[in-house]
Formats: sequence, structure tokens, C-alpha cells
Amino acid sequence: MIAPYTAAVDVTAFDGRPFAARRVRLAAALGDAPALFAAGAARPRNYLANAYPYRASSHFLYLFGLPVRDAWALWDGRAWTVYVPVPDLDAAVWEGPQPGVAELAAALGCDARPVGELAAALMRRPTATIAAPDLETCAEQGRLLSRPIRRGRFEAIDVPLVDAMIAQRLVHDEAAVLELRVAAAATAAAHEAGMKATRPGMRESVVRAAMEAELCARGMTMAYGSIVTVHGEVLHNEQHHNVLDARDLLLADVGAETATGWAGDVTRVWPVSGHYSKTQADLYDVVLRAQQATIKAVKPGARYLDLHNLAARQMAEGLVGLGILRGDPAELCADGVMALLFPHGVGHLLGLDVHDMEDLGDRAGYAPGRTRAGEFGVKFLRLDRDLTAGMAVTIEPGLYLIPALLGNADLAARAKVGDRLDRRRLAQFDDVRGIRIEDDVLVTAAGHEVLSAAIPKARDAVETVMR
Amino acid sequence: MIAPYTAAVDVTAFDGRPFAARRVRLAAALGDAPALFAAGAARPRNYLANAYPYRASSHFLYLFGLPVRDAWALWDGRAWTVYVPVPDLDAAVWEGPQPGVAELAAALGCDARPVGELAAALMRRPTATIAAPDLETCAEQGRLLSRPIRRGRFEAIDVPLVDAMIAQRLVHDEAAVLELRVAAAATAAAHEAGMKATRPGMRESVVRAAMEAELCARGMTMAYGSIVTVHGEVLHNEQHHNVLDARDLLLADVGAETATGWAGDVTRVWPVSGHYSKTQADLYDVVLRAQQATIKAVKPGARYLDLHNLAARQMAEGLVGLGILRGDPAELCADGVMALLFPHGVGHLLGLDVHDMEDLGDRAGYAPGRTRAGEFGVKFLRLDRDLTAGMAVTIEPGLYLIPALLGNADLAARAKVGDRLDRRRLAQFDDVRGIRIEDDVLVTAAGHEVLSAAIPKARDAVETVMR
Repeated sequence: MIAPYTAAVDVTAFDGRPFAARRVRLAAALGDAPALFAAGAARPRNYLANAYPYRASSHFLYLFGLPVRDAWALWDGRAWTVYVPVPDLDAAVWEGPQPGVAELAAALGCDARPVGELAAALMRRPTATIAAPDLETCAEQGRLLSRPIRRGRFEAIDVPLVDAMIAQRLVHDEAAVLELRVAAAATAAAHEAGMKATRPGMRESVVRAAMEAELCARGMTMAYGSIVTVHGEVLHNEQHHNVLDARDLLLADVGAETATGWAGDVTRVWPVSGHYSKTQADLYDVVLRAQQATIKAVKPGARYLDLHNLAARQMAEGLVGLGILRGDPAELCADGVMALLFPHGVGHLLGLDVHDMEDLGDRAGYAPGRTRAGEFGVKFLRLDRDLTAGMAVTIEPGLYLIPALLGNADLAARAKVGDRLDRRRLAQFDDVRGIRIEDDVLVTAAGHEVLSAAIPKARDAVETVMR
Repeated sequence: MIAPYTAAVDVTAFDGRPFAARRVRLAAALGDAPALFAAGAARPRNYLANAYPYRASSHFLYLFGLPVRDAWALWDGRAWTVYVPVPDLDAAVWEGPQPGVAELAAALGCDARPVGELAAALMRRPTATIAAPDLETCAEQGRLLSRPIRRGRFEAIDVPLVDAMIAQRLVHDEAAVLELRVAAAATAAAHEAGMKATRPGMRESVVRAAMEAELCARGMTMAYGSIVTVHGEVLHNEQHHNVLDARDLLLADVGAETATGWAGDVTRVWPVSGHYSKTQADLYDVVLRAQQATIKAVKPGARYLDLHNLAARQMAEGLVGLGILRGDPAELCADGVMALLFPHGVGHLLGLDVHDMEDLGDRAGYAPGRTRAGEFGVKFLRLDRDLTAGMAVTIEPGLYLIPALLGNADLAARAKVGDRLDRRRLAQFDDVRGIRIEDDVLVTAAGHEVLSAAIPKARDAVETVMR
């Protein structure tokens, strides 16, 4: 079969119109203030010529759509110009026929010039910028602009640019939503492949390979390091060496990145045996009900922190129902008891980055006037904005039995845990280590749409796929 | 099935003895001159927390065997000490239980200290070092040593260290050879999977996915960006979007990297239809015979440049036999006619890096007194040393129909091509674009051993696997 595929730099098939429209909007926000964008350089693995797969800066991708390595773009206050390396004979031999400057200009729908002309074009005018992902390009940015450029930091001149990018990228246009749908569809194929491949006695890595192969076959990559583990209690587990036991739950947090950089981010948890045990089913349904209630609350005007708290409270209610927690669910959350079992935030922005615009720090994730709280349980919450139509977020509550947290006397004292956590009852759920259920949700005028809805989630649906 | 697997950082299962032995040898070469080694930091993809899969510096891996992120090692002239980040509660929650300082010390068989103590241990003494792969760590190296640290450059104080590392890493010890065998075995599985998966109508990416899944399932990664393409004439083709036509040859240059960093590097070329056409078979056999003759010449004392020239001359002979070239094979090579069809070097060092120690530049690949020639055809030759037992090299001649070279009037004039290239005859081979055959070869006292010998190479063997 011919896998669906989006080629990275196919200039002939490229439709530049959505990107031109984005540039028009950004230019209107910037006015005559110049701004410089860097695509960024390749990042070396062990030596310069052996680089990781190239990933252009999301800001550049947002405005131009093509990952042109080492390219720059300048809004000079009146027009856009892209500055690109000029391919030579060696490039033709090693990398194949490359689009020339004129071809790129035609594809992108704006002027293109050799990169050597950039310095003169800047003419030492004060110019806003955003740091590139790699330090080599940051250093070049600094040389070009005669000021230090540091990732995650902006000077006063940069702030209007940063805020304009945030305002625009927060609300996804039609082309962006299309890419998020492509990412979600590939992510769905990966998760179904993972469920179908799972057998007791395998290594986690075999399931990971089956999932990532679906993305690779489509010309995509992973939006982040895949988590495929029977130790789901390790939140960002990057080990895949464990052998699957029939009693285990397997947690897979795997998402596609399309060829032009848009992310999917989905977590499912399935039983290695193909059937959830009673204890696994009980905790799974606590998380699932909380996730469904939280998704239901996604709509324009909803405050994201309230969604986080809703998910926590719903899970606390479920745990009280199972006899694991005792007391008032709201109090259990407020006091931090619930955070021992649900220590992370309920989700984040999703877009060109899996944590969209995290390079801009909490300035992107937190509305003006709001700041990240320091308490355990919310200190990892990456988003607190009032939702608006066009935003995309993840909703990903989870329950985890983390020895380092459950055994932490200091946290227990601060949360006044006392007898509100029944550790003997919890111990009966010892075939559960971590459960997280995560979907990608687009905020719409009418409320929301779950982009990853095709991926089996109810227990019987998961078991059916695994059969 | 349980795939063979080498876990990256399993401290409990780690055998530190081969690494301790390497450190003893290096220390003997260094004497009382201090030396600092950096494992290096993670390299961000789009923002700091979303990093590429971590790859430690090969020099650190060589001496310590474990990819401990952000670790440092110091030879202070008397003893080895590793300086490591101290895991906190957040690390336990996000990354799981981490080996502590004492555990690492026990596993590594040398003293380990918290990284915060490194600056004091250096005490501003002049200390040799080698630049880390990432610029962030290079900057920290510079701060620690109070001098600029640049990749690929050494000051006088660094030269004895660099030369000692080169001398030691050039000759693989038993543990290194074992890892190269593991890499070759996984690489073999990947190539067989690729041959078996290939069907007309697929995208290149589907075959790539099948090959890389074999490596991922084993807990390994790719030693370099996989080349899986019907456009084998693009030497480092990183595109995988073409649809396989039954008339195409598929070139796959894919190699495993073991969990501790050792590389495989193998190229095979197979017919999408499962059967080489007459023209494909003719050119394939020219390359194959040249490769076999070149491998046969691998032995202690052989000069690598001579091997390169042997491969070129053998292919020129073959092309004269097919009526594509006319004249004396040696002259065709010397004049640069052959370089139009074989523009790259016949191979390179293989070890912890796929181009081993390329971070040290030609100081590693070229024997003292030898320098890289500037002419087309040899300017890409990465190695010119006299071989000694324990070295590992690739042997990878190839023939390519590269429009940018064949149509280059300047190169044709310089090579005095004239009627020595029969372009009409060459055009009859239009179902061939690029053929490269590459194996990993260990130099032994008796001559050589082909580490990748298990991978089908003769045409009938390839066709049998594809059946």
C-alpha cells in the first residue's frame, strides 16, 4: 500500500497561501518594527556532520511552512524576505538537486535572497527576534543583531514580536487544524498498532518499534520521545527494556509530528494480557471518567486551571468511592493529598510544538497576570488561560503509584495525609503502577472537538482491538 | 519473542572492567597531565525540555561505558573521578529512580562526586580537554577551564590527550569488537527486514520503517540518518517519499548504533521487483567485484589510499568491459574520469562514531604527514592510514549516475573526458541511478574479518531473501 505521506521540502507541491496569510496578519501586528526569524541549524549527535534529523524552529515553520535548514527570514517593516544558503555542486552530489533561490521565492510567495546578503539588509537597525532552538544559530543571531540572544529570554524590543506570535499561534487557523488532524490520524494508527502488537514476553521496545514504524512509514517522526512502558508511574520514562508480564498494564504516550512540524500527543494504557483485571479496571475507569468530565468542560471561556482542578476532584471522588482516599474530594485536592497520586498538570497547549510555544516560557501558557503556583501538584501545570475557539489543548489526567512520592514523609506532612490515604487498600491495586489517558482537544465555538477521538479508549473498545 | 536488547543505563548489570582497563591505558599515556571529559547535554529539538534522544560524547562512552547525561570525568594526574548530577525528587517523579553517586561509583569502578564539586577539583590547573558534541557543554567546558573550547580545534595543551585518544581508539579492544559485532548483527536484521518488506507501489518510507523497527525493537537506534531511496545517486539522500517502481533499484544505507554507542554501517542495493535486470546486474557486479577485491586487500600494513585507488581501478576496468568507459583503467582514475561516477571515498574508520573520531578532524583519519588531497574524487576520502590489526573500516565503493556531475562541463574538461566516457552506452543503463555496496571490516593479524558478512550481497542471495 502507498502510505499517506507529507514530504518535507517538496517545493513543487507546496501551497504557500496559508503561510502568506499568516505573514500578513503578523506584519499587521508588527507594523514598521523589523523582526528576524531563524530556521536554525542541524544539531550534531556525535560530530558535526552526523546530525539529528533536522527540525526547524516552530516560529519559522509557522510563517513559511518549509523546513529550510540555515534559512533566515526578515520582516523589514515593509516586506518579507527569506535568506537562504545557495546550493553548490557538493550539495547537489550529497543532498541532491536543491531548490534554488528563485524557486524558493516562487514557492514561498515572498522575496528570497542568498544568506550572504542578510547582514547588509539588517543595517544595524534595532530588530526584534526570538532565539533559535540551537545555540549555534543563537550565536549567529547575536552577531547579526549585535546583542546577546538567549533561549527563553527577551529584551524589551522583542516583547511585541513575542506577544504577536503568541496571540496568533494560540488560535489555530484552518491550515493548522488540518495539520493537527493529520497528526492525530497518524497517532491513531500508531496506538492501534501498539495495541495489536502487544504480547506477554515481549520487550517494551518491540511495541515501541511497532508504533513508531507507523509514523516513519508516513514520512513523519515523533513529536517527543515515546513513552512505552510498564512503569507508567515514571512520568517521562525513556527506558524501553522491560519484558512485558501478563499482569502488567502498558502505558504508551506517543504522538506523531507531521513533516511540517505539527504535533499529536496521545496516551493510552492497555493490559498486556488483553484484559483489564478488576483492580486495573477500577482505577482505569476513575481516570477515564475524570478525563471525560474534563473534556466535556472544554469550551470557550473555560479557565484551564479550573479544568485541572475538575479532573483532580473527579479522580479524588473516584478514589473515595474505591476506599483508597477518605474525606471530602475538594479538600483532598486543596490539601495536596490528591497531588501525591496526580502530581502533574492536566495538560498543555498543542500546536507546532507538543507543548506549544514552550520556548517562550509561561508567557505563552499563562494569561497576563497569571503565574505558575509553587505547590506540588500545580507547579507542573503548563497552561492557565481562558480557552478560546481555535486553541488546541491536551486533556490528560492520570493516577500514579510513585514510591518516591508515596513514601515522602515531608510531602505527607505538608498535605496532612494522616489516615485520609488508606495505604493498605491502595496496596490491593498492586497490578497498577500508572494510568494516564490523554486526548488532543480543539476548542470550537460550539464547545470542543476531540481530534484523537478515533483512538480506542473505553476498556471494551481497547480489548476489542487487542483481540 | 524477546528481542536481544542492551539497556542504556542499567547500572546493576553493568560490567565496568573493560572501561577501567581503557582508563588505565589512557592514564599511562597521559601521565600526570590532567584531562577533562564531558558526556555532554541533551540537544533540544524545538524547545529545551523536548530534546533529541540523548547521545553522550564518544570519548566519554569509550572510557566509562554509561551515557550519564551532563556528567564529567577528570583525570587529575593521579586518579579518575566522575562528576555527576545529583538526582532530586522531581527527577525521581519524571525519570524514575536514578542511580545515586555511590551507585555510579560502584558501577564505574572509580570515584564519583556531585557535579557541583568539579570546579573546585580543577583548581584552575591547566587541563587538557576535547570539545563536547553540544555547544552548551562546550561553553561550560570553557568556563571551567578559563579558555575558549571550540569543536574540532585543540590548543597545544590538548594535543597529547587528542593523540592518546586517537592511538587508543584506532585499535579496538575485545569489548569494542564485541559491540561492533552486536551492531553488525542488528544491522543485518534491519537489512533483511528491508529486503523482505519491499514491494512495488510502496513508499521508500515504508521500507525505512521496517528496517528501523528492527533496531528500535532491540533497544538500539540508528548510527546515522538512514538512506533508503530509489535515488541512490544522491549520496546522503534523506528524503523517503518516493513511490517504489518495479523497475527501480532501492539503495539502503542503514546501520545500528548499540545502546552504548557503537556503530554499524552497511549499504545494500536490491531490485524493487525482486529481480535485477540485465543492466542492473551488470553494474551491480562491477561494484561487487571491486568491493570484494578491495576487502581482500585489507590487512595490516595496507595503506587505505591504495585501497581506495584499487576500488576505483577495479570499477574502471569493469566499466571498460561494459563499454561505458574507454582507455586504460589506471589513467581513467588518475585523470578524474572515474571520479565522475565514483565521487566519494571508499570508506572510513568505524567505531563509536560511524565516521570514527570525525570530531577530531583529519588528525584521526590521516596518518601524521599525510593530508587530504583537494581533487574531486579523493577530497571526500576520510581515511588514509596504514591499517593495523584491531582497526575497523568500511569498504564501500559505488557507481552513480549523477546528472550534476555528468553534466558538469568544468569537471569534464579538467578530467579530459573526451570520448573516454560513452554517454550513449551509459544511457542504456537507465534503470540504475546509484549502486553502493558497503561492509564493515575488522583488520586482524591474519588479514581481515567482514563483520557484516551475514548480510546477503551476491545477487542470487539477495533475490532469495526477497522471495
